[in-house]
Amino acid sequence: MPVEPRRLLEGYDTRSPAVAVLGSHSALQILHGARAEGLSTVLIVTRDRLWFYEQFSHLVDRFVVVDRWPDLCRDDVISELRRFSAILVPHGSLVEYVGIGCVMELRLPVFGLRNLFEVEADQRRKMGLLREAGIETPKQFRVGEGFKGLAIVKLGGAKGGRGYFLARTPEEVVKGVDALARSGVIRGPENVLVQEYVVGAPLYVHFFYSPILGRLELMGADIRYESNADGIGRLTPKYLEHLGIEPSFVVVGNIPVVLRESLLPKVMRFGQGFVEATKRLLPPGIIGPFCLEGVVTEDLRFLVFEFSGRIVAGTNLYVQGSPYSQLYWGEPMSMGRRIAREIRIASEEGRLGEVVT
Amino acid sequence: MPVEPRRLLEGYDTRSPAVAVLGSHSALQILHGARAEGLSTVLIVTRDRLWFYEQFSHLVDRFVVVDRWPDLCRDDVISELRRFSAILVPHGSLVEYVGIGCVMELRLPVFGLRNLFEVEADQRRKMGLLREAGIETPKQFRVGEGFKGLAIVKLGGAKGGRGYFLARTPEEVVKGVDALARSGVIRGPENVLVQEYVVGAPLYVHFFYSPILGRLELMGADIRYESNADGIGRLTPKYLEHLGIEPSFVVVGNIPVVLRESLLPKVMRFGQGFVEATKRLLPPGIIGPFCLEGVVTEDLRFLVFEFSGRIVAGTNLYVQGSPYSQLYWGEPMSMGRRIAREIRIASEEGRLGEVVT
Amino acid sequence: MPVEPRRLLEGYDTRSPAVAVLGSHSALQILHGARAEGLSTVLIVTRDRLWFYEQFSHLVDRFVVVDRWPDLCRDDVISELRRFSAILVPHGSLVEYVGIGCVMELRLPVFGLRNLFEVEADQRRKMGLLREAGIETPKQFRVGEGFKGLAIVKLGGAKGGRGYFLARTPEEVVKGVDALARSGVIRGPENVLVQEYVVGAPLYVHFFYSPILGRLELMGADIRYESNADGIGRLTPKYLEHLGIEPSFVVVGNIPVVLRESLLPKVMRFGQGFVEATKRLLPPGIIGPFCLEGVVTEDLRFLVFEFSGRIVAGTNLYVQGSPYSQLYWGEPMSMGRRIAREIRIASEEGRLGEVVT
Repeated sequence: MPVEPRRLLEGYDTRSPAVAVLGSHSALQILHGARAEGLSTVLIVTRDRLWFYEQFSHLVDRFVVVDRWPDLCRDDVISELRRFSAILVPHGSLVEYVGIGCVMELRLPVFGLRNLFEVEADQRRKMGLLREAGIETPKQFRVGEGFKGLAIVKLGGAKGGRGYFLARTPEEVVKGVDALARSGVIRGPENVLVQEYVVGAPLYVHFFYSPILGRLELMGADIRYESNADGIGRLTPKYLEHLGIEPSFVVVGNIPVVLRESLLPKVMRFGQGFVEATKRLLPPGIIGPFCLEGVVTEDLRFLVFEFSGRIVAGTNLYVQGSPYSQLYWGEPMSMGRRIAREIRIASEEGRLGEVVT
Repeated sequence: MPVEPRRLLEGYDTRSPAVAVLGSHSALQILHGARAEGLSTVLIVTRDRLWFYEQFSHLVDRFVVVDRWPDLCRDDVISELRRFSAILVPHGSLVEYVGIGCVMELRLPVFGLRNLFEVEADQRRKMGLLREAGIETPKQFRVGEGFKGLAIVKLGGAKGGRGYFLARTPEEVVKGVDALARSGVIRGPENVLVQEYVVGAPLYVHFFYSPILGRLELMGADIRYESNADGIGRLTPKYLEHLGIEPSFVVVGNIPVVLRESLLPKVMRFGQGFVEATKRLLPPGIIGPFCLEGVVTEDLRFLVFEFSGRIVAGTNLYVQGSPYSQLYWGEPMSMGRRIAREIRIASEEGRLGEVVT
Repeated sequence: MPVEPRRLLEGYDTRSPAVAVLGSHSALQILHGARAEGLSTVLIVTRDRLWFYEQFSHLVDRFVVVDRWPDLCRDDVISELRRFSAILVPHGSLVEYVGIGCVMELRLPVFGLRNLFEVEADQRRKMGLLREAGIETPKQFRVGEGFKGLAIVKLGGAKGGRGYFLARTPEEVVKGVDALARSGVIRGPENVLVQEYVVGAPLYVHFFYSPILGRLELMGADIRYESNADGIGRLTPKYLEHLGIEPSFVVVGNIPVVLRESLLPKVMRFGQGFVEATKRLLPPGIIGPFCLEGVVTEDLRFLVFEFSGRIVAGTNLYVQGSPYSQLYWGEPMSMGRRIAREIRIASEEGRLGEVVT
């Protein structure tokens, strides 16, 4: 059971909170943003990566060095972080590195909606929340169920696309899932999501919901750069057939993109629907960054195949602000800085309890 | 017949003009740019999109709400805009939303070369102007005429690529055109352009011609992000064949790109040729933004398959300035801001009549 | 034999050096960066390109106009440049335009490690240096040697990918190399490099090694935009087969990208390995910009297939700074500006001899 937000801030200097983050994913951006807003910073980092982050020590007030990531959940580490009045900013590596159990129990204020992480970790609940929000999603199938076109089989958690595969028939789905189960990657068919594979232009849209300002901001968009899916198109059929290669979807980086402006109202409606659905089903609702991840079809539908309930790595493109954040703020506003600004304003207004769970 | 520029500005406070734009395409960038230059702004917007643009009300001095886009052409709407000394900044949605007839007759000063919009709306005159400008273009065919390689069949107007299709033989062209005619999308073969489909790297180059400074500026470049053309390459032949899918070219967004510097002189020559050709054939010639849209072949030719005679949506990438505009201005200069600066300088120098038609 | 750095600076006003660059590749960025750091600038340019660069004359203090590029090596041109206390900033067109012999003998201080240019011009020594640096590279084959999967055959020098071709079998390698030799593009099999073609996500990572600050900075990353490799994926198999087209790899431009943050430590290790290897084998070691060019596989290995020992054109994306350079500098820091800053600091500290060879 998550602790009460007010209890989490007990003993904190709420006029001078620090931003704490795990050394991975979007940590540099988050540290940079906190610095820009005048907040102090704590980096939790494993010994083997310390040398790397030390190159950015001008962005870090304190390094908390751990032997392994799950040490974050140890009482002494938590106590140390609490001494700094640290607010943990979650990113895509958090649950992956320390486990959902630790994250849910963690006696630290987390910037964001902690209950949402459990939903995000479960592909079926995830898609259910999207539909609840009135967001268009691709069709979903049971393992072995018939479908038209192509299906993509996905594994749970933020694995960066690892293990995902395509199938043309229900039999190919079953065969692939069996192989994953036999090799121990998954326990069984209940651990995969089978989704219609929609051909179109993949698109990842970054939002920030501010409980303090009571508004939703469109922060940017990106295209994931995936290995090998973004390499195979550079070969002609004869070479691909010679290699007998299968598409794979491991995220390697991100490419910037802007959307056709006439798509923005639709995209914002989806974002607002998401905010409302989390308020309804997971009160107090989303806090801060989230991402709707989908594909735009040739008839300009935006089919959302996944969401992230926290900062996504695609925002690393916009350390200097994005074409969209510029419209709201008129100054370079990264997602990391936006998070820090929300914390700063909440702190100044004595409302820190409203932005942590 | 377009009205005389001087007559269009009658009754205007030419020391304090406002920028007016339709709520679509690149409106946010244009509003943001006008604000940066200290101009007041008017947004013409349909009732159903008002909620969206109201989120950016800090960029808008006045909303002119209409029931449907063609209401722009109503006398009362025009009178209202004239009361604000509004200069209409045209973008890719203008002709599409209100029709070429309305745009040509509109009793409002338009920033840009209005006569060019008629040429742009006619695929054949469009290509003729490019050739007249000394710009290399792909081969062009009549419906049914023989060709080597591939052809692409395009429809008129700024439809964002909708309806475009590929053909391997003259028979496939005829068949596709017949289908479009039967379904009422086009009236007949005279409404399509059949062009050689050149394989290479697509490239969209943004220019700004300043009548006030008497110079052409290279403002940026982008790659259109199209559905499904930019999605199919992520699949191998066996999946594409299973789907039996055809490439389509609906623009969804834009991706930033810079050009090999040794291509820039060639690209600038084409830009200059375009400026000169419009001065010769459509005096006073182009005013402000335009875009040359083509493909760079492996022998580094730039074959221009289309142009836009006004701001393109690809400039939305550069709300904070582009790598090229930075070279001229040394400050963040978007295309929207560049337009506003031209209007501001023209206004200050009493030369507003030189930048509107 | 390269001249001693100290001798190269004889007669120079080392308190007020100028940046000199050839009008191509990344010249505009380098000039812009020098200007931002308050250095004076010299542009060496051929007569036919002068008109183009004159449009940026606000960035250039002196134009040195030559009839043909190799005129750079003429005594009168060198003397003129020396009169301006000019430090030549090398880029990808330098060796290509004036020849490696001229560059090695040039009696001008060059910002960078001149000895490295010889290594870079020889594909085999190039790959040897990478392996020496502990950097993972693709497999390498002799012409005619057996291999699995696909091979790519590359020519020496910075030809922007021209002439590169793919092969499925040793026989296809031999046949292609023979054709190149017969057409005079290469002398024989010794002039090509046969490399395993690794399918994945291509990635070009920009570094700056500062001898003055004694640190390595990650400056940015890009994806090369190649004709026709980045165009063929927009077509389905039936059209590609109809065209009978082969992939080609001529660089047309560059697209921005950020890396998955968990890849950064690996990438930095490679960068550091490269710095150390050049210090060991080519003292005093690399000075300033270099680039590691490779492909990220689906198991997140970074296989480096080439390097550039000087500024790459991909940095032209970041005239306003990159998401990475922002982390170090907190101000817009392009590679061109970073070079100028290093020269400026070295000049101020009387250490100019440490940044030229």
